[in-house]
Amino acid sequence: MRNAYLHQLHAVHGDLVDLVRLVHGALDRSTVALLEGDLAIAEAVIDADRAVDLLRERIEERSIELLSLQNPVAADLRMLVASLQMVGELERMGDLAVHVAKIARMRAPDPTLPTEAVPLFARMAAICQHMVARLEDVLVDVFENPTPDIARELESVDDEMDRLRGDTFRILLADSWQRDVEPAVDVALLGRYYERIADHAVSVARRIVFLTTGEQPVRG
Amino acid sequence: MRNAYLHQLHAVHGDLVDLVRLVHGALDRSTVALLEGDLAIAEAVIDADRAVDLLRERIEERSIELLSLQNPVAADLRMLVASLQMVGELERMGDLAVHVAKIARMRAPDPTLPTEAVPLFARMAAICQHMVARLEDVLVDVFENPTPDIARELESVDDEMDRLRGDTFRILLADSWQRDVEPAVDVALLGRYYERIADHAVSVARRIVFLTTGEQPVRG
Repeated sequence: MRNAYLHQLHAVHGDLVDLVRLVHGALDRSTVALLEGDLAIAEAVIDADRAVDLLRERIEERSIELLSLQNPVAADLRMLVASLQMVGELERMGDLAVHVAKIARMRAPDPTLPTEAVPLFARMAAICQHMVARLEDVLVDVFENPTPDIARELESVDDEMDRLRGDTFRILLADSWQRDVEPAVDVALLGRYYERIADHAVSVARRIVFLTTGEQPVRG
Repeated sequence: MRNAYLHQLHAVHGDLVDLVRLVHGALDRSTVALLEGDLAIAEAVIDADRAVDLLRERIEERSIELLSLQNPVAADLRMLVASLQMVGELERMGDLAVHVAKIARMRAPDPTLPTEAVPLFARMAAICQHMVARLEDVLVDVFENPTPDIARELESVDDEMDRLRGDTFRILLADSWQRDVEPAVDVALLGRYYERIADHAVSVARRIVFLTTGEQPVRG
């Protein structure tokens, strides 16, 4: 009985790590689709989202089952509560990668972004990818090597993201912007999507701190 | 002991209802701020968001405490799991109302929206307000009068929302759009914000169905 319980708890943790990896992959590929106008890669991101949704459902079901049948306490309880809270954030990060891919698909094989916006979005995407890679590292190892500073670490990376989002508006509203409305709408929405991916990464990091320490980190 | 537990469970339910009411108020006021270019009302929405955040934190803390100390089962457990899942969605709805208010504040006392987009946004806002009002009704009464159809009901309202979001792009990309980039960016982002408010309302409705029936509703 106890062994079956530990096995299931372990499975939830493994599924969470897999979910972060799926999201990481979606983010990598949607960024390639966007920056290189690659239709096939955009389609691959969109198709792969079903796996993210299914994994989220499985984690939720298992977590609720363990909560209801096993009366977990202390670290086990926190693991299940945190997983219920994290899966929603992770699924949304996957959805946002899909939104990026859908914009890329609409414009491919032409590049979606005006030339002057490319370095900005390459940087925004790199920050998001770094954040998700950190979540992956920390989550894999969360019991053996807890990292209570992960929320503060990602919050400080997120500050750069907020500045970059401001830069997207500066590009859009500059006198030098001589383009149509369509690329402006793309840039505005893409800026929003990457900003949200980073916000969700910070929220997941906060859940990991709760899981590790039992404390809700103070908002930075 | 048992009485104290029931009292706390009751308090979580009461706080959830209050949270929905706060979000409803934020949505009503941000829409007035947007449609009437009312700076004071926009400021009021932005200031009131702190109360939403605090209430969310309190509900989370209480729910986790009850889960850890009381080993709740069946309907009580579902109530706490659903509340953990719903508060994040409700807080985001409040944040999105703040985003609407911030755009209104930036343009006030001028109207934010080009004339041709006003009826569309009035309708999008009305749908969101209707959805939140339904959540409020159903949640107040969730134990006495369960409403297992609420998810399907809001999903069908959400279909209209998706069509209206499409209409925002049609307005933006029409040949008749002779405006600057700035109002185009506003319209694109505002369309996104209202669409997301409606999406979150559907998610909350799905959590209410789980709370009521113990089943995760099939996605419509």
